[in-house]
Amino acid sequence: MENYRTYLTEEELPTHYYNLRADMEKKPAPLLNPGTMQPMTAEELEGVFCSELVKQELDNDTRFFEIPEEIRDYYKTFRPSPLVRAYNLEKVLGTPAKIYFKFEGNNTSGSHKLNSAAAQAYYAKKQGLKGVTTETGAGQWGTALSMACAYFGLDCKVFMVKTSYEQKPFRREVMRTYGAEVTASPSDTTEVGKKILAEFPGTGGSLGCAISEAVEAAVTREGYRYVLGSVLNQVLLHQSVIGLEAHKALEKLGVTPDIIIGCTGGGSNLGGLIAPFMGEKLRGEKDYRIIGAEPASCPSFTRGKYLYDFCDTGKVCPLAKMYTLGNGFMPSPIHAGGLRFHGMSTILSELYDQGLMEAVAYEQTEVFEAAEVFARAEGILPAPESSHAIKATIDEALKCKESGEEKVILFGLSGTGYFDLLAYQQFNDGTMTDYIPTDEDLAKGLAFVPPQPEE
Amino acid sequence: MENYRTYLTEEELPTHYYNLRADMEKKPAPLLNPGTMQPMTAEELEGVFCSELVKQELDNDTRFFEIPEEIRDYYKTFRPSPLVRAYNLEKVLGTPAKIYFKFEGNNTSGSHKLNSAAAQAYYAKKQGLKGVTTETGAGQWGTALSMACAYFGLDCKVFMVKTSYEQKPFRREVMRTYGAEVTASPSDTTEVGKKILAEFPGTGGSLGCAISEAVEAAVTREGYRYVLGSVLNQVLLHQSVIGLEAHKALEKLGVTPDIIIGCTGGGSNLGGLIAPFMGEKLRGEKDYRIIGAEPASCPSFTRGKYLYDFCDTGKVCPLAKMYTLGNGFMPSPIHAGGLRFHGMSTILSELYDQGLMEAVAYEQTEVFEAAEVFARAEGILPAPESSHAIKATIDEALKCKESGEEKVILFGLSGTGYFDLLAYQQFNDGTMTDYIPTDEDLAKGLAFVPPQPEE
Repeated sequence: MENYRTYLTEEELPTHYYNLRADMEKKPAPLLNPGTMQPMTAEELEGVFCSELVKQELDNDTRFFEIPEEIRDYYKTFRPSPLVRAYNLEKVLGTPAKIYFKFEGNNTSGSHKLNSAAAQAYYAKKQGLKGVTTETGAGQWGTALSMACAYFGLDCKVFMVKTSYEQKPFRREVMRTYGAEVTASPSDTTEVGKKILAEFPGTGGSLGCAISEAVEAAVTREGYRYVLGSVLNQVLLHQSVIGLEAHKALEKLGVTPDIIIGCTGGGSNLGGLIAPFMGEKLRGEKDYRIIGAEPASCPSFTRGKYLYDFCDTGKVCPLAKMYTLGNGFMPSPIHAGGLRFHGMSTILSELYDQGLMEAVAYEQTEVFEAAEVFARAEGILPAPESSHAIKATIDEALKCKESGEEKVILFGLSGTGYFDLLAYQQFNDGTMTDYIPTDEDLAKGLAFVPPQPEE
Repeated sequence: MENYRTYLTEEELPTHYYNLRADMEKKPAPLLNPGTMQPMTAEELEGVFCSELVKQELDNDTRFFEIPEEIRDYYKTFRPSPLVRAYNLEKVLGTPAKIYFKFEGNNTSGSHKLNSAAAQAYYAKKQGLKGVTTETGAGQWGTALSMACAYFGLDCKVFMVKTSYEQKPFRREVMRTYGAEVTASPSDTTEVGKKILAEFPGTGGSLGCAISEAVEAAVTREGYRYVLGSVLNQVLLHQSVIGLEAHKALEKLGVTPDIIIGCTGGGSNLGGLIAPFMGEKLRGEKDYRIIGAEPASCPSFTRGKYLYDFCDTGKVCPLAKMYTLGNGFMPSPIHAGGLRFHGMSTILSELYDQGLMEAVAYEQTEVFEAAEVFARAEGILPAPESSHAIKATIDEALKCKESGEEKVILFGLSGTGYFDLLAYQQFNDGTMTDYIPTDEDLAKGLAFVPPQPEE
């Protein structure tokens, strides 16, 4: 019998990030400067981001970027992540399907976010910077960045959405333990924060506002840059280590997946998982069904429009062409905080638009039902975000049960739910509710989308 | 360079538990029936514990117990645990010592407790029981047992100390997600609980009281038995998988440790880690320094007496000969809840009494300082309990720095601190306090130790 868990050796770990864009015939649309409606230049971006990361962001052609030894050494403290055969889940479902998952939650940040935090902190340090700033909502990205900054010896300023800062003090304390300075946003430490506080005294803040504060804190401080944990091309590039490891491990097992599934918020988890597989598909070498699982309450793929839009509600970021619900869309307070983003990675958006991947949307109660089945069978308590992928996997596995097909399903288990237990409590108590935006909600969200550039 | 993480393959995993007692010339003292002062018989114990576990508890001679295939299959969902070379900690300390740790925290229960929970749930199921009962304080054991019961299809009733039930709702929700029934103790579901509630209305409960309720719930219900997560011989037997894996992994690396360190509460973590190494020491094949690290606030080894005492404050359990602070000792409210036990495993107590191992005691503030250094260097946020071992390791590594000796240190990282963030918050805020019992406190603790049997 095949092993439950497959670990690559350190010698087998990826030495290069794989840039999926290099294999896309039609490239993702460039970021635009909202003032000029012209593509953002490296120079413009370097005021906000580290130089090396700007290069990675703009490079649509280089297929492989070498992973510096320092980053690879750091990865060895939490990678390889295991590729797990979900024997027990298969048994519980009674399916002939073979289910594998790539588990990214076995590190203190609790998710895949650390893969990109490591790279971003390293390049900031290499550039001789003093520190980085970022925003965090639920706190996974902030935790990951704090850990990477502690390792590379970099100052880390995190603007945490005030309601989360107050309601999720534990995530905050993890960040502080790693030496990060955590500020509740909006704060009086930035001009934009002061302005918002004056206008809306007592506001609980929002991710959009926290982004604006983090960007201001970076550009007004000598030796600081801003970093972001999803959506960007560079982040998907770093996350390709997930897919590269999974691909090699499956190859060692002599297994080829038929279906690859991941949850999608900003797209970094699915984008990283599918990278080498989608590369084969783009080059016509193999075919895979690829499915993004998103929340019905924030359905960028399944109900959004493919348009140029701001990535943030504060409208300080460049315009990105993506599947978007509109920067005016207010996602409902579901528990998969990491999936509550109105837009989507430009790379995945372009692939979806070309029909190279599918998307499904689920309500949170059915997602938690799937999470519970999975936890009891496989032991791991999954993050609400990752549980969207579990739900899609269970659905596909049950279809196989009906048809008798022995399909191979690979899904990304991007993180653990140890900091999401208020959500599990609601589910256990039977008080969890679902939210589906009305067509009117969607129309409102799109009301602030800027005029589109001419084709 | 040697790898950061060494994983055994599934083929290399232990097939047998190792019973350290078989190699002890002077055996640990038997449990006594407090009524008769005679050794507890299998028959007496089988009213409370599963039959197979009673056999394991009483058997001082069988060296190896085969691990049933069903348990080995379950272990494969979270084992092998990695043996990690702490390169980054070595670098931060500037020590010539080589530091390794065996990390048991990469499962949802967050600690090594799952190793014994798996075995105990399996044997209960095999005996045809409906379910098991237990108590839990901080919740690690209760979580582990819930997970194992969900896997083996067994009912699980957990009596959780009321203050923890209210203050640590997240652990409670993990247990509920795995299908356990969690009751705040004292409760009105047992006679002993009702009695305590009548006597002390509004009490927050205690571990002693929760044990009494769990035992009553087991013996008064058809098809139920009581299970316990530490202290007992059977638990150390199951935990030997930690040491067996570590021993084999070090052997593969061609490394022999000079010093082996673990934290000690009831003794299951250290007892499991050292098992095969202590076996070699007892058989005169190898020599190792073995160090138990305990809290200065609950110093069973360093300030306790080697006496027959009750394992519980409620005095419903048999008498065990152990290093004890007395069943009347009230441990201070430190954050390493898993180490707040007045007694100690009889096996470790006997080994300590024979001078085969040492012990050190630390105050919690210095333990959290060590935890922070470790977290920033190695990424993993350690449990407060495990951080006692980290502190001892850092101390030994710094001695090597002074002497220039390249000693090899192996320590047990028994768990993660994800559910201990109130403690980290106190540490980060600088409001953590230390507690050291006075000689008067210790005298009070010993006041209720029963009359000792004649030698």
